[in-house]
Amino acid sequence: MRECFELQDTDAGGRLGELTVPRAGVTVETPALLPVINPNLDTISPRRLADEFGAEILITNSYIIYNTDDVRERALSEGLHDMFDFPGAIMTDSGSFQLSEYGEITVTTEEILQFQADIGSDIGTPVDIPTPPDVSRERAAEELETTKDRLEIADGVDVGDMLINAPVQGSTHPDLREAAARHADSTGLDVFPVGAVVPLMNDYRYDDMIDVVAAAKRGLGADAPVHLFGAGHPMMFALAVAMGCDLFDSAAYALYARDDRYLTVRGTQHLEDIEYFPCSCPVCSTHEPADVRALPDQQREETLAAHNLHVTFGEIRRIKQAIRAGNLLELVEQRARAHPTMLDGYRTLLDHADQLEASDPVSKGAFFYTSHESARRPEVLRHRRRLERLSVPDSLFLTEGDGDGPAEYDDSWRVKPPFGPFPRALSKSYPLTAEVPTRVDRGALEAAAAGITRLVESNPDSEFGVGHLDWPAGALEALPDSVETIDLTESHRS
Amino acid sequence: MRECFELQDTDAGGRLGELTVPRAGVTVETPALLPVINPNLDTISPRRLADEFGAEILITNSYIIYNTDDVRERALSEGLHDMFDFPGAIMTDSGSFQLSEYGEITVTTEEILQFQADIGSDIGTPVDIPTPPDVSRERAAEELETTKDRLEIADGVDVGDMLINAPVQGSTHPDLREAAARHADSTGLDVFPVGAVVPLMNDYRYDDMIDVVAAAKRGLGADAPVHLFGAGHPMMFALAVAMGCDLFDSAAYALYARDDRYLTVRGTQHLEDIEYFPCSCPVCSTHEPADVRALPDQQREETLAAHNLHVTFGEIRRIKQAIRAGNLLELVEQRARAHPTMLDGYRTLLDHADQLEASDPVSKGAFFYTSHESARRPEVLRHRRRLERLSVPDSLFLTEGDGDGPAEYDDSWRVKPPFGPFPRALSKSYPLTAEVPTRVDRGALEAAAAGITRLVESNPDSEFGVGHLDWPAGALEALPDSVETIDLTESHRS
Repeated sequence: MRECFELQDTDAGGRLGELTVPRAGVTVETPALLPVINPNLDTISPRRLADEFGAEILITNSYIIYNTDDVRERALSEGLHDMFDFPGAIMTDSGSFQLSEYGEITVTTEEILQFQADIGSDIGTPVDIPTPPDVSRERAAEELETTKDRLEIADGVDVGDMLINAPVQGSTHPDLREAAARHADSTGLDVFPVGAVVPLMNDYRYDDMIDVVAAAKRGLGADAPVHLFGAGHPMMFALAVAMGCDLFDSAAYALYARDDRYLTVRGTQHLEDIEYFPCSCPVCSTHEPADVRALPDQQREETLAAHNLHVTFGEIRRIKQAIRAGNLLELVEQRARAHPTMLDGYRTLLDHADQLEASDPVSKGAFFYTSHESARRPEVLRHRRRLERLSVPDSLFLTEGDGDGPAEYDDSWRVKPPFGPFPRALSKSYPLTAEVPTRVDRGALEAAAAGITRLVESNPDSEFGVGHLDWPAGALEALPDSVETIDLTESHRS
Repeated sequence: MRECFELQDTDAGGRLGELTVPRAGVTVETPALLPVINPNLDTISPRRLADEFGAEILITNSYIIYNTDDVRERALSEGLHDMFDFPGAIMTDSGSFQLSEYGEITVTTEEILQFQADIGSDIGTPVDIPTPPDVSRERAAEELETTKDRLEIADGVDVGDMLINAPVQGSTHPDLREAAARHADSTGLDVFPVGAVVPLMNDYRYDDMIDVVAAAKRGLGADAPVHLFGAGHPMMFALAVAMGCDLFDSAAYALYARDDRYLTVRGTQHLEDIEYFPCSCPVCSTHEPADVRALPDQQREETLAAHNLHVTFGEIRRIKQAIRAGNLLELVEQRARAHPTMLDGYRTLLDHADQLEASDPVSKGAFFYTSHESARRPEVLRHRRRLERLSVPDSLFLTEGDGDGPAEYDDSWRVKPPFGPFPRALSKSYPLTAEVPTRVDRGALEAAAAGITRLVESNPDSEFGVGHLDWPAGALEALPDSVETIDLTESHRS
């Protein structure tokens, strides 16, 4: 068991956890957002981030500090915590990003880790190779070997109780990501950033991002805290948390503000296009857009950055509450409608329902069926699997109706889309207590048909009948030929 | 043209408007929320509602004032505006609700309207009969006759420049609602509450609520301001606005707070169950749930009421901004995932796509396809209709691919799910600029097939071919038999 990270609760792939950062003497609740602090430029002071926004941890770039003489001297003499006047934990990046942008940097993993330790970082980072998406397998594999070497070097350095990041690379090759994660997990390192996903997010490739994270998660133990490195837009936090990400870092709040861009959980808007602030944060409930537009540059930037932080931290709290309440996927259902590419991301998440099912609790508050996609949730999959293990009589009637069905059957079970059949005794247990719309859709009916098929195929010696309420041909055709079907619509109405 | 109401912008059935309230000397921007003020009990003072939350109009109950001696005397001597210290417009209800709850009230329409005028109300209400849902057609029709009589009495009284509500009743009988609306619209009255929908909302019957509003809207002119009477939960504002509601009133903010209930756009939570405030409002970004739980009763109620108001007014601003930006239905897509019954409401809204299409602008920002439901939006319907009016050559290839298709065709048009076919010249015009997911779903493909079918059937003398990217059998079967189909998947990939 990794000592620094403890899971408190899970929902789908999402986790509430506690990351203990010994050097800072603090415990950070996850999912957590790490505001990015540019050592040369602060829009919102670290003190304000802690006091006003509740930031428990931030991230800054040790390579920039290392290369900026006066800041370097201050950092070495005062330490990061005093220099920034920040009471929480401080994570430092190593310059890998600069490496990926400019092709080379002038520091080794040993040097930069030692420097990070010297300036008082609580979580340091080696110089990994951030291999971009879509490169050849050969390049990705070759660069991954270098990254692995760096992790091993990092594992050997003595930096006291500073935690160390073990970035997981591998580009868009799932097997490489998984292998990279497995290797990283086998080191003694502490926190696991999924690296080089920023290009995917910049191109709205949330489907590919989910595949990358899913692959990394397969290689990591459940006790590994996972950082989606470079992800700062609140629109996609819920989706990424549902796939198992625990940490996010946001430079977006400040960079976007500089550019007059306004973050929302539904996407980004330009201040110029806003006539009414679509938000209830302290900034938006006390300012009119026109007034903010009229502010001097620096004040406008600070005002927008404050809004951006409010909405970002608000979404993190919303996600934590959703995990606690067991309705994280219900939140993802909503966020998936923010943009067509977010829907692609959600549909991809559900491709991994099998993987999510492993951490999804057996019982939660209530399952809400709120879209065709709901039919592919891990709970539906789990119920279908469970059907294989239930014992059935020689003849069984499966019915959407309230009655017992024709007398020739030994027993009757209920059918509820999207789950399919179940013994009446399970009616009051999760997820069969699900709230479903009155207007059942094809997604739910076909999932129910798949459940019936699973039960029938697992019990080849039993006879089955199905009583349904006006199912369309497509759903009926999905049933095995051996099943007798009866449309109960008329008798149900009477 | 009704003088008191002017439309500024529309999106689907939603409207941005200005309600001019002459007696108050103010113009209220709609959609607007009217906080309900209980004359005997205020959780948040009207002055604070105006100054801190931006309330432009509130509503109070003249019948309670009429029946409470001391309040009655104060209201008559000071007038409502001074008594409440409220600078905006004040609407008064008549006691109809009390009539529906207790079976009788002791005042006539003439008396209560005169009283409302005497106490300085800006918008008064006659004593209509709030016929509940699901009653027999006979009862609904009979009670509607009484309501109509009351409206005619109200139309005849002289109350100076006080505006007067003309409630639209008719229970859950769409033809009666429509007839009631047509009658109300024909009077000289000013504002149109859709009445007695509270029981529907209490039972989460958002589908039936939408049908009721749709029926009322068919009977009202576009210049009629519509009040969804008794609707105060922010979860359903976007849906109701999209169907054409302009005014909402909220007692919920205070009543829920009294009961430790916390409003969100995703539903209601009990304070007891909240570990992290899922919100970024000024209350939630400065308090922890445990701290609020520990507050003395009155202070806790006030704190929760303030949160409830922040989230409620924030949603109203979000809706206004969405109408301005032309993405109201994208917002409804998200809100529809708050609860399965909200999805029923959205699916019902799309049953009225035809009605929405009449007010939906021809061009907007961008169409986002974010669920199977998106395939039924008014824009898709409009495009399909437009296909009947386009002229086509003798032979035409309709293709999802980039190329021109086989040489034997005279021309080629693009096919884009969910819209279907269109000449390439239209590619850059709304809604064909739509953003759609990479993972196209059956809803989109079948809608596209319906578009192709419409074009083919409108041009029986032309020959058509369809080039598609791996459409499933269901979508291909929806095409007319006469159409030649080619799967382009291989050539497209190469």
